[in-house]
Amino acid sequence: MSKGRLEAFSDGVIAILITIMVLELRVPMGADWNALRPVLPVFLTYVLSFTVLGIYWNNHHHMLHVTGRITGSILWANLHLLFWLSLIPFVTGWMGENHFAPPPTALYGAVLLLAAIAYTVLQATIIAAEGPDSRLAIAVRRDVKGKMSIMMYVAAIALAFVNQWISDALYVAVALMWLVPDRRIEHTVDDRRASGKVEKEKVEK
Amino acid sequence: MSKGRLEAFSDGVIAILITIMVLELRVPMGADWNALRPVLPVFLTYVLSFTVLGIYWNNHHHMLHVTGRITGSILWANLHLLFWLSLIPFVTGWMGENHFAPPPTALYGAVLLLAAIAYTVLQATIIAAEGPDSRLAIAVRRDVKGKMSIMMYVAAIALAFVNQWISDALYVAVALMWLVPDRRIEHTVDDRRASGKVEKEKVEK
Amino acid sequence: MSKGRLEAFSDGVIAILITIMVLELRVPMGADWNALRPVLPVFLTYVLSFTVLGIYWNNHHHMLHVTGRITGSILWANLHLLFWLSLIPFVTGWMGENHFAPPPTALYGAVLLLAAIAYTVLQATIIAAEGPDSRLAIAVRRDVKGKMSIMMYVAAIALAFVNQWISDALYVAVALMWLVPDRRIEHTVDDRRASGKVEKEKVEK
Amino acid sequence: MSKGRLEAFSDGVIAILITIMVLELRVPMGADWNALRPVLPVFLTYVLSFTVLGIYWNNHHHMLHVTGRITGSILWANLHLLFWLSLIPFVTGWMGENHFAPPPTALYGAVLLLAAIAYTVLQATIIAAEGPDSRLAIAVRRDVKGKMSIMMYVAAIALAFVNQWISDALYVAVALMWLVPDRRIEHTVDDRRASGKVEKEKVEK
Repeated sequence: MSKGRLEAFSDGVIAILITIMVLELRVPMGADWNALRPVLPVFLTYVLSFTVLGIYWNNHHHMLHVTGRITGSILWANLHLLFWLSLIPFVTGWMGENHFAPPPTALYGAVLLLAAIAYTVLQATIIAAEGPDSRLAIAVRRDVKGKMSIMMYVAAIALAFVNQWISDALYVAVALMWLVPDRRIEHTVDDRRASGKVEKEKVEK
Repeated sequence: MSKGRLEAFSDGVIAILITIMVLELRVPMGADWNALRPVLPVFLTYVLSFTVLGIYWNNHHHMLHVTGRITGSILWANLHLLFWLSLIPFVTGWMGENHFAPPPTALYGAVLLLAAIAYTVLQATIIAAEGPDSRLAIAVRRDVKGKMSIMMYVAAIALAFVNQWISDALYVAVALMWLVPDRRIEHTVDDRRASGKVEKEKVEK
Repeated sequence: MSKGRLEAFSDGVIAILITIMVLELRVPMGADWNALRPVLPVFLTYVLSFTVLGIYWNNHHHMLHVTGRITGSILWANLHLLFWLSLIPFVTGWMGENHFAPPPTALYGAVLLLAAIAYTVLQATIIAAEGPDSRLAIAVRRDVKGKMSIMMYVAAIALAFVNQWISDALYVAVALMWLVPDRRIEHTVDDRRASGKVEKEKVEK
Repeated sequence: MSKGRLEAFSDGVIAILITIMVLELRVPMGADWNALRPVLPVFLTYVLSFTVLGIYWNNHHHMLHVTGRITGSILWANLHLLFWLSLIPFVTGWMGENHFAPPPTALYGAVLLLAAIAYTVLQATIIAAEGPDSRLAIAVRRDVKGKMSIMMYVAAIALAFVNQWISDALYVAVALMWLVPDRRIEHTVDDRRASGKVEKEKVEK
């Protein structure tokens, strides 16, 4: 099964999701600056969700780069991740149009949590196929960021009913934590390049 | 005619279809949990249709993997399949927003039936081009799953007017049956890999 | 400039156009068969436009297959074609929702006419870059179908104000004429394959 | 990190943006020519935005063609550019539906300005990775067009409150200035091809 088509399909879905969210930014009625006011919270959630999807695309890209063979399980784990990502435009719209009210804020966190779990499942599925000595297994051995994200999302969902601004701050914090590119895999890739193993990989593509 | 562009176009269309369905999940007005209630049946049909489209992408992927030359007939048989798949968001929306009423449930089944027939036609067109000894011909020789799907869809359409929940259960059953990855083609591919024929294929891509 | 990215971008735009048209098929309010009635003319125009876009994708695919180098002029001629194609969902919606009234029928024809002219311009631009002895120049030497399509569209626009059903019949006739795959280029490609020139091409991709 | 996937993702996002703008061309209610009147200003802004996005795609294509390695910074600079481009459908809709009123005209310019700055940042990020003697660094040494575009957008934003038609004329002027394909990079590419270095590049893809 070819990796290229899995990457292309995932890229397509993420590119569409990142773009159709902008359709939630409904063109306001009036032509003056005040008309933009109700769009502002939707815009802020759009910025957050755009960043989150950008991070997923980025990490997905790195992870598949060090993946060899695509098995049926990897394919379905990948579709499972795309499913939760596909709900981001909906929860973004609900949170934005309700000015960050508690229930939409909690649901936003729940979808992000399920996407994070789906990503972890996909990662584990790839490692199961590649073996414990594979580059990916070594690169994400401890996966501190992954575990922290999941804990922060769980905290944010609970805290949404105390004060939703804490939850929103946590969502931003998780995004900022990931904006630092995932050096772990990049290092592993660099090592491979140095050792000449990358040639084989290029031919396989 | 290059297989790559046919795959890319099909991937694009399926990726868009799987994603625009989420636009039917209209952002509800209120900010409390009750506001989500009317969205629930739409969400459930979304899950079903997402799975169905995921299965089509997966099987399409496997089938084209063992296809060699793309003829004009294959190209049009492929567009014919994409046409029926493109109606899935519409019937999903109609069924979801009408809480699985009989006519929308029957129409949903009719579109799935026509898509299944179109897939069978595409399969037969590829086999006609590749010959009866081709890998695809051998892999799908009996095609039990394909024939069962078509029969189950026919039954579901008729039963929608008796009790639509039977139809919905049948749609879920067909999806579950396919969720088991199509081992037949995967095996054939593995055989090829073993026999070294896969090298030629990789160069051709 | 690489042909691959031009093809991928064109495929992306056509795949999106062919798919977002389905958003014009608005989910009807009621759950009975009568509720589908107003959707029927929109559905029929959808079938026609899906076929027209499928034909463009098919022919575009063939044409670029025999194109070598992509120049700046080819790139812009291609974007010009995509622009007119991008208006097809709009005119499809207007014609469908107004049950084939004369002005929407004429505008539909006008957009198809401008797309056909843009395709001819793109073809001429590629031939200008490739030279009069290029495979494409030989394959479309007389271009009977291209010229006939343009004449039929001109006739259909004028006749829309006499009887719009004649125009609609002409649109269907043009589509049927093209549904026969463009053997001309396919033959030329086969000749190349036979003469071994196709090897070079594959490496270049 | 592979250049191909970055290009494919960017192509996907730009293809979707250029296409979903057409959804702002809402199908008018009536079936006569007068019904098209309110669509006209939206259509004109659509033409402008289509051209602007076409230019970005074209230039992005040229720039990445001469880029070697994709670093984490380049990836994020690219997503930053896509973010501002993703707001073009929104500002296009606001400007079009308000018949070029001053605030929408100024905001349209602001988004184009931020996109132009993001493009310059992406260009600088690539040059920082490739070194001052890289082909891209040489090709855009003075970057007169880039600097002029930014100045013209700043002027247009300010002038929108004096007379918005001056601003609109400036937007059109910037687009026309770029419609001339970016000969600088094309020349550099031709030099490479001549010197045989292009072979290495093809293999790397």
